[in-house]
Amino acid sequence: MNPNQLHPTLAADCHVLGSLDLSLVLLHRCTTIPWFILVPDTTQTELYTLETSMRHRVMESWNDLSRFAATHFKADKMNTGAIGNVVPQLHLHVIVRKKDDPFWPGVVWGQPMEKSGYDSESLNHLTRAMIANLAGFEILE
Amino acid sequence: MNPNQLHPTLAADCHVLGSLDLSLVLLHRCTTIPWFILVPDTTQTELYTLETSMRHRVMESWNDLSRFAATHFKADKMNTGAIGNVVPQLHLHVIVRKKDDPFWPGVVWGQPMEKSGYDSESLNHLTRAMIANLAGFEILE
Repeated sequence: MNPNQLHPTLAADCHVLGSLDLSLVLLHRCTTIPWFILVPDTTQTELYTLETSMRHRVMESWNDLSRFAATHFKADKMNTGAIGNVVPQLHLHVIVRKKDDPFWPGVVWGQPMEKSGYDSESLNHLTRAMIANLAGFEILE
Repeated sequence: MNPNQLHPTLAADCHVLGSLDLSLVLLHRCTTIPWFILVPDTTQTELYTLETSMRHRVMESWNDLSRFAATHFKADKMNTGAIGNVVPQLHLHVIVRKKDDPFWPGVVWGQPMEKSGYDSESLNHLTRAMIANLAGFEILE
């Protein structure tokens, strides 16, 4: 999937980290909460309308990314969801929650999130860890 | 899974409708938003830690329930999520959203929800539709 096909809100709110099987992997620019977003290469807007084999692959990627993020960031709890009330392009949230984060135990959706962004060193450190520990993850050419 | 194993918050907030493969199917007592909750028979608290074949079956149930709910209630958008910051027992949300519901386009988690409950006629109508249109759904004995 070409990052140019991203919904403008996702493109504005997130860094593009790379790809994982059939999806782009984004990272929300809010550095307070490690917040990944998986964007499958589809024009469908609901998971349940995806063709079965694609849905299985996308849901495996969703789980694999959750497992990586939980381990890498030492999550107390993972929050995963597919919502799409505001941005219709299908996108799956993978959010690392800690009991001392500013929004705990509420959800982060709808909360004011600063979007200062990660510096390039932090992004490089993270993508190196993803290449090493998340099978199928690739940086875009 | 025995409904007696439900977390007290889920038991208090929801009607128990029946079972779907490895999970109990609950319906939140808030009648404003058709809000189903799937509770897999596990002591794990994260989807990604489930044994692979169980996770596949649970995620298929999640999708099947979403498809049923979207069709039956003519959803504008489905909101699905696994959060668990407050109730640790693994539970998967399947929430029917409409553009004229009182919380649109925000998420419903964390919003004040009345819990008046559905009357028995409405519950019977719904479970009959589920038996007819949701393969594998069963009313508890």
